[in-house]
Amino acid sequence: MYAAILAGGSGTRLWPRSRQAQPKQFADILGTGRTMIQATADRLEGLVNGDQLYVVTGAQYAALAASQLSQIPANQIIAEPFGRNSAPAIGLACIHLAARDPDAVLAILPADHVITDVQHFQIALRSAEVAAQHGHLVTLGVTPDLPHTGYGYIRSGHELSISEEADLPLFVVERFLEKPDLATATAFLAAGGYFWNGGIFVFRVDRMLAEMARQLPEMYAGLMEIQASLKTGSAAQCLAEVWPQMPNISIDYGVMEGAEFVAMAPLQAGWNDIGSWDALTNVLAQDEHQNYIARGETLAIESCGNIVYSDKKLVALIGAHDLVIVDTGDALLVGHKSQMQKVKEVVEHLRKQGHTDLL
Amino acid sequence: MYAAILAGGSGTRLWPRSRQAQPKQFADILGTGRTMIQATADRLEGLVNGDQLYVVTGAQYAALAASQLSQIPANQIIAEPFGRNSAPAIGLACIHLAARDPDAVLAILPADHVITDVQHFQIALRSAEVAAQHGHLVTLGVTPDLPHTGYGYIRSGHELSISEEADLPLFVVERFLEKPDLATATAFLAAGGYFWNGGIFVFRVDRMLAEMARQLPEMYAGLMEIQASLKTGSAAQCLAEVWPQMPNISIDYGVMEGAEFVAMAPLQAGWNDIGSWDALTNVLAQDEHQNYIARGETLAIESCGNIVYSDKKLVALIGAHDLVIVDTGDALLVGHKSQMQKVKEVVEHLRKQGHTDLL
Repeated sequence: MYAAILAGGSGTRLWPRSRQAQPKQFADILGTGRTMIQATADRLEGLVNGDQLYVVTGAQYAALAASQLSQIPANQIIAEPFGRNSAPAIGLACIHLAARDPDAVLAILPADHVITDVQHFQIALRSAEVAAQHGHLVTLGVTPDLPHTGYGYIRSGHELSISEEADLPLFVVERFLEKPDLATATAFLAAGGYFWNGGIFVFRVDRMLAEMARQLPEMYAGLMEIQASLKTGSAAQCLAEVWPQMPNISIDYGVMEGAEFVAMAPLQAGWNDIGSWDALTNVLAQDEHQNYIARGETLAIESCGNIVYSDKKLVALIGAHDLVIVDTGDALLVGHKSQMQKVKEVVEHLRKQGHTDLL
Repeated sequence: MYAAILAGGSGTRLWPRSRQAQPKQFADILGTGRTMIQATADRLEGLVNGDQLYVVTGAQYAALAASQLSQIPANQIIAEPFGRNSAPAIGLACIHLAARDPDAVLAILPADHVITDVQHFQIALRSAEVAAQHGHLVTLGVTPDLPHTGYGYIRSGHELSISEEADLPLFVVERFLEKPDLATATAFLAAGGYFWNGGIFVFRVDRMLAEMARQLPEMYAGLMEIQASLKTGSAAQCLAEVWPQMPNISIDYGVMEGAEFVAMAPLQAGWNDIGSWDALTNVLAQDEHQNYIARGETLAIESCGNIVYSDKKLVALIGAHDLVIVDTGDALLVGHKSQMQKVKEVVEHLRKQGHTDLL
């Protein structure tokens, strides 16, 4: 199995730790000593070697990715001229791998996920691989533990007969569902058979390219131009010319929802996407005062429910509740946990004020 | 007129800006570019020259005081071997000045006050000087604007006939009153004729020493020993021997309350003592979001009533209310305004943990 890590996001909702020069996937958000993209690669150990690993990222981050993932050959760090969306990014990974191994199985992994149970994660990937080898486009369906309204959902259908070859049951995907409201999400959980669409996909490269050719023919034509150029000296120029014409479309909308033979393998492995600071409560341990300390030393007096991220200094809390506190060398964020989606507004303000040093 | 600045406090309630190595009086707490002791000296400009100015501070702060107040001759920075209380500190200032000018008028000024109306402050000091020249021990009585329970009060009696020589009316002090409860303080304000005891005193040195001799004879004897040693080469040794025997008593309890001829000059000059971070709301301007920015740049989104002190970094607030946020190079304090008296607990914890670098 091969894998491609998608590392193109800007991660502004994790400002001030996530920065234009070093977005969250290249930062050690959890204080583990590993950046998120390194943790993503680590999670594949024993399943996908560095030699079989690709990264798709913005051109400005290619050198950073290479330095953080020295096990990956330099020509497998694929640079997008600028960020598009997941369909073109995955297409780019496909044509690179197709030139090497046309019917290879490829796993697509976003660089900003947190998965606590690596063993189960690998079992899910291996099970998905079974379905992929049979020609299915496979998505991992995250078993939901609460009616989250921030994720798309997958409704699973009947179990596939090829399940018996895998460690986990494999299902037909009956339907992809957009982010629901709370009542709908609650009904999903009560009904059962609904999973979060976590954005992890496994497929045979030839099958994905065939679906792209059928559903996104213009994008596919562009990919073929780029593929042809890979063997010539003009690859960079071709990419620069073709890329702006790529559709800004996600793999879910562009391919998966309309594809034939879409399967699902269930993932029950402590999956989280760290979309914003308040999401850290899902992945960090609580201390005795119900505070979540991502990094740094904290002294809490009559304070609880806070998330604290400090580069190195001591943080003292007094009567502070449900705050997110993120301290970096040049910026400090203090906000209420319930309002962390507004970090984007902070970044927008800074941009308007010309504070490029802080973006 | 001469003046002595009392700069012996440790200021732990303003941690982490106030530190053992640099207590609040030597720090620029208000972000004005001047430390509190510098502002105290600045406030005397035109009234008391550097040549007539003394500082009493702990031995470990003498060099710091000298460097911050270069206008003061080095021998007028008086070092206490260790912090005692205000009566011995003032006694020390008195014997130094008495050797130079026995019936000089001396003003005693704590180094951690904020006074916004310097002109009126100087008028009050000049008026107090008139009474002091007539032999009164004078205290400045701060006109109260709220029933504060954190200050002692002064009850004024009849106006002195010598008032006509001064710009402000001068009163006999009828009584010193301890910190009242809220009901009592409210009654004081309703009755009128009550003032806060702000700890600023003006007196003739011979009069103060005579009162010390009468009311604190042992302390006076110690002071006389020290005074005699000043003309010899053994001053430092004498001070080190005598100082530990000095009573740990305030000038209020030890002298003023039992003294004869105690007068009061009213002070209505925007007086504040910055005893804790929440007190900054009294002296800092509010921005359009009712936030008080002592230092640094702040970006506030749906946040109000916060006090922000940042050395240099940008502070972004989101949905934060009534917090005190103090950021220094090595420590960050985030607390609710109503609980700032607990900063002392933080310092105590750090001491127990052996975090001497942060004290």
